[in-house]
Amino acid sequence: MSHARRKLIVDTDPGIDDAFALAIAAQTMREEIEIVGVTTMFGNVRRDEATRNAKLMTQLTSIPGDERGFKVPVVDGSRVPIGMLAHGDREGRGAHDADDSQVFVADFVHADDGFGGARARVETEAFEKEKAYAYEAGKEAADFIAETCARYPGEVTVLALASLTNVALAFRRYPECLHTMGELVVLGGAFSVNGNVNPAAEANILGDPNAADEVFRTFERTYVVGLDVTTRVQLHSSDLARLARPFHSDGNGDLNDGKKCSDRVRLFLHDAAQFYKEYHLNAAGLDGIYMHDPTALLLAVPSIRNRVFTLHEGAVRVVTEGISRGQTILDVRRKWHVPNEWTSAPKCRVALDVDVDAALVELRSRLGCAPEDER
Amino acid sequence: MSHARRKLIVDTDPGIDDAFALAIAAQTMREEIEIVGVTTMFGNVRRDEATRNAKLMTQLTSIPGDERGFKVPVVDGSRVPIGMLAHGDREGRGAHDADDSQVFVADFVHADDGFGGARARVETEAFEKEKAYAYEAGKEAADFIAETCARYPGEVTVLALASLTNVALAFRRYPECLHTMGELVVLGGAFSVNGNVNPAAEANILGDPNAADEVFRTFERTYVVGLDVTTRVQLHSSDLARLARPFHSDGNGDLNDGKKCSDRVRLFLHDAAQFYKEYHLNAAGLDGIYMHDPTALLLAVPSIRNRVFTLHEGAVRVVTEGISRGQTILDVRRKWHVPNEWTSAPKCRVALDVDVDAALVELRSRLGCAPEDER
Repeated sequence: MSHARRKLIVDTDPGIDDAFALAIAAQTMREEIEIVGVTTMFGNVRRDEATRNAKLMTQLTSIPGDERGFKVPVVDGSRVPIGMLAHGDREGRGAHDADDSQVFVADFVHADDGFGGARARVETEAFEKEKAYAYEAGKEAADFIAETCARYPGEVTVLALASLTNVALAFRRYPECLHTMGELVVLGGAFSVNGNVNPAAEANILGDPNAADEVFRTFERTYVVGLDVTTRVQLHSSDLARLARPFHSDGNGDLNDGKKCSDRVRLFLHDAAQFYKEYHLNAAGLDGIYMHDPTALLLAVPSIRNRVFTLHEGAVRVVTEGISRGQTILDVRRKWHVPNEWTSAPKCRVALDVDVDAALVELRSRLGCAPEDER
Repeated sequence: MSHARRKLIVDTDPGIDDAFALAIAAQTMREEIEIVGVTTMFGNVRRDEATRNAKLMTQLTSIPGDERGFKVPVVDGSRVPIGMLAHGDREGRGAHDADDSQVFVADFVHADDGFGGARARVETEAFEKEKAYAYEAGKEAADFIAETCARYPGEVTVLALASLTNVALAFRRYPECLHTMGELVVLGGAFSVNGNVNPAAEANILGDPNAADEVFRTFERTYVVGLDVTTRVQLHSSDLARLARPFHSDGNGDLNDGKKCSDRVRLFLHDAAQFYKEYHLNAAGLDGIYMHDPTALLLAVPSIRNRVFTLHEGAVRVVTEGISRGQTILDVRRKWHVPNEWTSAPKCRVALDVDVDAALVELRSRLGCAPEDER
């Protein structure tokens, strides 16, 4: 490999496409990345469900007999957006145990269990509590993120697949994290297209617009990919059908070759995706599913990034009030007659275009649902 | 002509590209449209300057000896946006005489006189006060618009080349105008691109976001063209140079053939455009000028509209507060899981794409600056 492996923290709210991303990262990217932790967030489901699902994915994607003894901490994050924190709780010390009954979750996209109703099938079979381990007692996602970045300065990429609450709280609690975090890769926003919650707002950003704006205004090494790109990267029905066909007729379905997801994981992803597929058919008339989170994962891997995406540098601000709350606005021009709200914000690198075929080659081959994977 | 002539009110803040639009409309579109009035607005310049410039354009573009005795009322509009009206002045009765010292005008684009410093040259020569006449005493643009629409129900198109204050006040004062106005064609907004004042906002809409949102939320037959399209329709330096070359070597430069602007007008447009050209070079590195207002004029002419533009139907809302104040957001999807702020707004027809060559054929041939016009 010409590129060094990156340490990766996946901050996530699983979620069906989160599950795809975690599976691809854990099982097929060992040459490119090392997952050093999974932190959880409200979003597709409430935080407690997200943690349960994240733990399940770390189980399901660890390979028995793996000499590395694959084991990754799963660390609880915030239950609520920054705007719902108690007055005066600037560092979000109450975020972990906050009342989340008023938080909007996307159960109509991911089902009550966040996994399209497929969780029970694998949890009974594979959920082994002792193999998931939590971080140090009393520490939460924001602490874990900051402490891990401090341990490996410049080496850790945080892949934020949900709202940016945990990341913003890490920066609030540990300002030095602005320097020690290597890169932040954000799945969120809609720059030249409508949002997916309403014409203005994309779901991850609308989940916590204050956190997002705070992060975009302060952190320098941010990559962003939003709906402009992620809705173009689609697995089709035929891809999903291939996921259900095992590679290993000898029944040894848990072994993979380090380049493709295992049969057991592929079958789970297939099952989870059925509910998600129905949503896409009803909402967008699409015979397939958007690969939002896996596309963001591709952006997090330097050896893939430049082959797949066209990046634009510019300041991003997030609207925090009014009818367009949650909207992301990228300054593509940066030369203005008078200073404006974007002037002092650092430049992000925003993926505004994607080589769809190149992205799908990466994803289909790793999932084992490319046509050449047919047996 | 297969299309009936439309009656046109031009609501305008001249402004250099406004001058181009007025000249093209008055001198080259007599088969397609009849200008029944010009109403004025703050914007590129203060309202009083805009009125002076609009009167000058009606003089300059009228053709001596024209058997129609071309004569068009020029009617003062609002000096301030709706948000600057006195509390309780819902119908904007004070708008005509309001203090406009705090209104932002684009003199850095159009110069102090709004005509790139070229006004004095033609005003001394051609400005004949008696030929411009104002509307009935005490009546303003909003009254004129509503009363003219009432006189010719369904036949009048209002071409709004500035902020939508006058139009919004017409609807407030005369709700029946929502039914009698034929079409409204709006130059304004930025839908999938940055604004031109800041990353969020385009100048006409930012000039009065409240008025714009009010109009988009209530009037059903609105056409909109914004920066997505108008920055792509550019006259080049070479086009401008051609404007200064007279057609009529016999010195009878005031006569035109009804298809092209007269020499006198072309020379004025050439002179006015020099300042505007400098702005484009400095601000955008462009060796030419954007044809914002003339492009909107093309959208107002049904026989041209469908050949030149790709229209999308959808609700438009305008942000009236926060960092993105003045932003226009078009719902291109209209199918959402829960109702939103766009749900009950009527559909506009928004020009999201343009056949640049077709637009330039219309404009260059009418201005007499196409290569085939070289003598």
